[in-house]
Amino acid sequence: MAFDDTCKALSDPTRRQILQLLRTGSKSAGEIGEQFGLTGATISHHLNVLKNAGLVTDERRGKYIYYTLDTSVVEDLLAWLLQLQKGNDHEA
Amino acid sequence: MAFDDTCKALSDPTRRQILQLLRTGSKSAGEIGEQFGLTGATISHHLNVLKNAGLVTDERRGKYIYYTLDTSVVEDLLAWLLQLQKGNDHEA
Repeated sequence: MAFDDTCKALSDPTRRQILQLLRTGSKSAGEIGEQFGLTGATISHHLNVLKNAGLVTDERRGKYIYYTLDTSVVEDLLAWLLQLQKGNDHEA
Repeated sequence: MAFDDTCKALSDPTRRQILQLLRTGSKSAGEIGEQFGLTGATISHHLNVLKNAGLVTDERRGKYIYYTLDTSVVEDLLAWLLQLQKGNDHEA
């Protein structure tokens, strides 16, 4: 299974914080940037990485694009990590 | 929490395959390299990344160094992913 993009997206602390923030509901890039004191270019970069990894979806509402957490790819990664851990318990 | 190294280590398919292989027990670099048809330098690089991420430990036994899967850092990542997923279910 290809977790490359998921894992790369999760390897940055700011992106993990953005995902945490989106647990509270959809937010615009401006709202997200405000929370972390990030410039538009920086927040755009992080949101693009998260979007390409399938961890967020975006949707235009009027003037703004809203970003929503999507944890469906997280499920596959969770399943893989759980089997890795389980296999190792048997070995130990 | 700092999952940077864990996630970076997991973002490579060969490294994930090495972890899978180590579920079956400790292996030397030579044994691991053989399984994947990788050169010594390449396998060394991957094993170093996994070791720095805390996903494997190494131990010298006679002439060879053996690598063992360590899933303790996986537990923290699992917990983080589970709370992310759980929070999102509540939102949906």
